Amino acid sequence: MRVASLFFALSLLVAAPAQSAQPTRIDATAIAQAGTVRDVALRDATAWKVLESLTTEVGPRLAGSPADARAVAWAQAKFRELGYDRVWTEPVTFPRWVRRSETLDVLGAHAQPLRVGALGGSPGGTVEGEVVRFADLAALQAAPEGSLAGKIVFVDYTMQARRDGGDYRNAGGIRWAGPSVAIKKGAIGFLMRSAGTSLSREPHTGNTGFEPGLTPIPAAALATIDAAQLARLVALGPTRVRLALDCGYDGEATSYNVIGEITGSTRPDEIILLGGHLDSWDYGTGAIDDAAGVAITMATGALLKPLHPARSIRVVAFANEEQGLWGGRAYAQQHADEVARHVIAIESDFGAAPIFGFDSSARDLQPQALAQIQQVLAPLGIEWLPKQGDPESDIGGMVDLGTAWAWLGHDGTRYFDLHHTADDTLDKVIPQELAQNVAAYAAFTWLAAQAEGGFGSDARAKGERGE
Amino acid sequence: MRVASLFFALSLLVAAPAQSAQPTRIDATAIAQAGTVRDVALRDATAWKVLESLTTEVGPRLAGSPADARAVAWAQAKFRELGYDRVWTEPVTFPRWVRRSETLDVLGAHAQPLRVGALGGSPGGTVEGEVVRFADLAALQAAPEGSLAGKIVFVDYTMQARRDGGDYRNAGGIRWAGPSVAIKKGAIGFLMRSAGTSLSREPHTGNTGFEPGLTPIPAAALATIDAAQLARLVALGPTRVRLALDCGYDGEATSYNVIGEITGSTRPDEIILLGGHLDSWDYGTGAIDDAAGVAITMATGALLKPLHPARSIRVVAFANEEQGLWGGRAYAQQHADEVARHVIAIESDFGAAPIFGFDSSARDLQPQALAQIQQVLAPLGIEWLPKQGDPESDIGGMVDLGTAWAWLGHDGTRYFDLHHTADDTLDKVIPQELAQNVAAYAAFTWLAAQAEGGFGSDARAKGERGE
Repeated sequence: MRVASLFFALSLLVAAPAQSAQPTRIDATAIAQAGTVRDVALRDATAWKVLESLTTEVGPRLAGSPADARAVAWAQAKFRELGYDRVWTEPVTFPRWVRRSETLDVLGAHAQPLRVGALGGSPGGTVEGEVVRFADLAALQAAPEGSLAGKIVFVDYTMQARRDGGDYRNAGGIRWAGPSVAIKKGAIGFLMRSAGTSLSREPHTGNTGFEPGLTPIPAAALATIDAAQLARLVALGPTRVRLALDCGYDGEATSYNVIGEITGSTRPDEIILLGGHLDSWDYGTGAIDDAAGVAITMATGALLKPLHPARSIRVVAFANEEQGLWGGRAYAQQHADEVARHVIAIESDFGAAPIFGFDSSARDLQPQALAQIQQVLAPLGIEWLPKQGDPESDIGGMVDLGTAWAWLGHDGTRYFDLHHTADDTLDKVIPQELAQNVAAYAAFTWLAAQAEGGFGSDARAKGERGE
Repeated sequence: MRVASLFFALSLLVAAPAQSAQPTRIDATAIAQAGTVRDVALRDATAWKVLESLTTEVGPRLAGSPADARAVAWAQAKFRELGYDRVWTEPVTFPRWVRRSETLDVLGAHAQPLRVGALGGSPGGTVEGEVVRFADLAALQAAPEGSLAGKIVFVDYTMQARRDGGDYRNAGGIRWAGPSVAIKKGAIGFLMRSAGTSLSREPHTGNTGFEPGLTPIPAAALATIDAAQLARLVALGPTRVRLALDCGYDGEATSYNVIGEITGSTRPDEIILLGGHLDSWDYGTGAIDDAAGVAITMATGALLKPLHPARSIRVVAFANEEQGLWGGRAYAQQHADEVARHVIAIESDFGAAPIFGFDSSARDLQPQALAQIQQVLAPLGIEWLPKQGDPESDIGGMVDLGTAWAWLGHDGTRYFDLHHTADDTLDKVIPQELAQNVAAYAAFTWLAAQAEGGFGSDARAKGERGE
């Protein structure tokens, strides 16, 4: 371990001066072209048509389902229709999780059904018991060991809407860690207020997990409205419920990362990597999560192809992001020896609201080139926000191996009204906002494809994630 | 028939001069008290507490269900808790309709589930066929006889939001008449875009009916979002679906009109009749339809009791409004010989948004008294809107027999976002708006209870409904 660390430190010393000695340059022609690309993209309907096509013709596409297989065929056909030079697939294998039914019934004097959604990864089963409400994860963690024997835990944390979606860390954290904490204290079932800001009756699903050695229990999220109802009932007195989930893991499935590439005109072996994910949860048609990302990046390549970009533009529609980043991890495994060829990576997986911020791992290595990119993005209302960005999830595998990343941050204030619920449908995307997204991606991608010099991708440097 | 008509015409001639010769008077003390009542009601939380109690403790309460029986017990207890002098029930018997499950699946290349809700009164059954879309009822009516043999009709009319909710006539009309038209042209199933303005995934239910002699077919409403999806799919090419409803009539049920009365101090035999309906559809907790009406009218009586109103204030929580005005019709039958004792009737069954308008059947008979009432309502932002009001549905039976009515019209612009859907829940009511509603009802009721002279209730005059 020490030898490796020493080698790593030395490699940084070697790499850093090389970067600063040779600043990446973007010439005036490329900048002018990027401005034109940006303005054309604002009036282009390609992304909208792709979004409408995927959400309508395929609809919900849970990873490993028949609809997921249809989505893979759809993506291959759509890349070809859009004129991509190369289209191929790479297999991704994962455990298949299926949802059949889910009910929650209040029993006794106030008998009534409440709306609930199984968490991804939950086992099926029917449990009946008294509800014990906790305001947040810390309160659950503070419950004495064994105090929840035979009980059904209800963590009633209300997620706050923020532009950066930052409170999803807390609410999503309950979804991830809550069930295991509940099991260790004796609970037979786990309920939580949806990790979202929706005020509809639609529960928010999403993956959970169970610590090794624990016997999983049925785990589900109440719609926010229904969580408020359960909280009122619990305040009235002891409240018994029956949670019945028919869901669970069912063997293995193989899906595919679907990849389209516009071959670079002068540097075909150097890749600008764009991506979104093709799978969705099963409740909605996955319009904002993440048909929009697929549409934005597919349209970007299509818009730039006639201009013959110097580097290759590779767009990946990743498989099964939702249940554990399976597609992103498979891509990184498959392309681990091509880190330096991936000049920079960027993914759109945060909806289709206006992009407000730009950041990159190259902020210290290539400030001049980033300033040039920022100059082209500014007319779109996009600010340079150093250290506020992160690589999105599917490109994280390549970033961990050393690939440079960029971030174009969508306004997330209303993202969690829709995310992972039945309300994630086509009508929620505003065509002009989607066009702004494409304008940003197309301008950025053009500049990255034309720049002289790279952005710091280096297998020896490993990845620097955002703050 | 001719003899009866002549008698009716003569009775009007006799009644009218008597009314105009003795204008109804409201004295200055009563007007001052009404202003105080109005202002106190704006700061009173009684209605909110009643609303929260019914929607939380009982929840959804489909007529004839166990929850409906719990609602009846709740209403009796609540009237007593609020200090009503007399509390009693009157039985109401009707066919019981039950909903168990409902699914709609697009088949074939674009296979996906769509959200659908059985219409009240629909039979169960599973049908599979090609969808034929019509823009509205007229287009369906224009389809050639027999042209829909084996098909599933889809009437895709988009209801418009209006303050008076007036477009519900068109959209609700499709729900009522559409299935029978479809049957006569050979259709095996009936689908419609929800008769509502919601943009959630929640379908809008509500009663339908079938003309005598026709064999009923499964009939359901798509959520508006899902109707738009089906329209896009139909535009792509022939679209087959499978509609599977498990619902239908199941014997008879008896529920109850629950009645609470504040006994009048000087004219106990004269009644100001207030009402809302106790039952709800099964998807939501019936907060705006019509726990709000029950809460507004229950709170009105409770607020006025300490002031010892001259006339009796009778509040009726009507049974089974939703499936055919069963409670209102039973009340009229039971009290048919007491029309003149019912000095004036008013019902709240249009949500809890601010009341903006006032009208009454007494507009020509008692303009002076109505002007005095209007003067007290004006500070609440309520306009006198002659001939724009209607009696609400449950008091219609008494109105048809000759009882005078008043109308306090709620703003209905957003009412049909929630009406008859799962989104009709407590959180949608704004406490200050509910208090404005109570202030209007309490002020009006006080003035009606104290007025010298009546408002034209007369069994010989029969009822005058609104324009």
